[in-house]
Amino acid sequence: VPKIVDHVQRRRELAEAAVRVIGRLGLDGATTQAVAAECGWSTGVLRHYFRNKDELLLAALSELERRNLQRFEEAKGEPTGYDAIRAAAVATIAGDRDETRVWISFLARASGDAAIAGIMRRGIGTWTRRWADVLQRGQDDGSIDPDIDTEETAVELYGLINGLRIGSAFGRASYPALDRGQLTFLEHLRADVPVS
Amino acid sequence: VPKIVDHVQRRRELAEAAVRVIGRLGLDGATTQAVAAECGWSTGVLRHYFRNKDELLLAALSELERRNLQRFEEAKGEPTGYDAIRAAAVATIAGDRDETRVWISFLARASGDAAIAGIMRRGIGTWTRRWADVLQRGQDDGSIDPDIDTEETAVELYGLINGLRIGSAFGRASYPALDRGQLTFLEHLRADVPVS
Repeated sequence: VPKIVDHVQRRRELAEAAVRVIGRLGLDGATTQAVAAECGWSTGVLRHYFRNKDELLLAALSELERRNLQRFEEAKGEPTGYDAIRAAAVATIAGDRDETRVWISFLARASGDAAIAGIMRRGIGTWTRRWADVLQRGQDDGSIDPDIDTEETAVELYGLINGLRIGSAFGRASYPALDRGQLTFLEHLRADVPVS
Repeated sequence: VPKIVDHVQRRRELAEAAVRVIGRLGLDGATTQAVAAECGWSTGVLRHYFRNKDELLLAALSELERRNLQRFEEAKGEPTGYDAIRAAAVATIAGDRDETRVWISFLARASGDAAIAGIMRRGIGTWTRRWADVLQRGQDDGSIDPDIDTEETAVELYGLINGLRIGSAFGRASYPALDRGQLTFLEHLRADVPVS
């Protein structure tokens, strides 16, 4: 059914353009016209896929979730829980600046918009649980320190990753540990196992 | 000179009202009228202190900086670098939700506003250096692990604190370690010194 595939691909293409425009101009600047100009389609085509600006902006938020989840699921293919945590953390922190800026724009809108506030709150809850599950897997396979509290550590991990993304999207803060693939903050989660 | 003191106090009182209103409604909702209603003064009085809405919003941002710096400087009174880091981290993470929401609102505005982007970027740089300085003090007095890279760890610490604040301002993510005053993520920064 090529027509449906085409529809899904076009929607994603437009959502990707919206991510870039929001990242550059913020939610207020991301008009239907600006997104149309970014992707080279007419506003008429855009309106065929999204009824209004709000639908388009929510599609940009869904696109972030899709990318974050894809990276996370790929990382879960690693042999141990610890390796999965490290791979997921590296890939997430390295996510592009526009994604972080879109996330921040929606967090800002959560003040004063109960529907967006609910989406953001549930997102934070869902992601914290996802990180906790992989920490638990690491305790089960012996790669993560059995003494850590997985729930509490998940809150820290998720918080740290978000904080580092903000530093690189809005500051000059570089994080050389990322390039080395050796995340300092992860080292103390590791189980003390003798080198085999 | 009571008149000058009065002026400074009134300005702060209005800035504090602006922080609460931005926290509740976002930057767009923080009109001069809304802030006037919040603090019980007329918009005429407000206009006497702030020429326009932008000046008022920037005063709210300065109020955040004042609070964060006050907490940080107080924490520096602790006997060791490690204790100072812990006290500063606890006090900062426990800062109120409105502060975090105001900070997020300004980060969001940084996309598309070069002046705000510059203020936010410099703020991230300044705070990262402040944390690095206290880590260095801890290495000098023997309370912080001599093997850590203070610059890189400061990026992590500052990122983690911001991430945890976001979790508690916009999510349900609770952080029980904070109530215990024992921040798990700080433990591994500690120097391995024998208990005296």
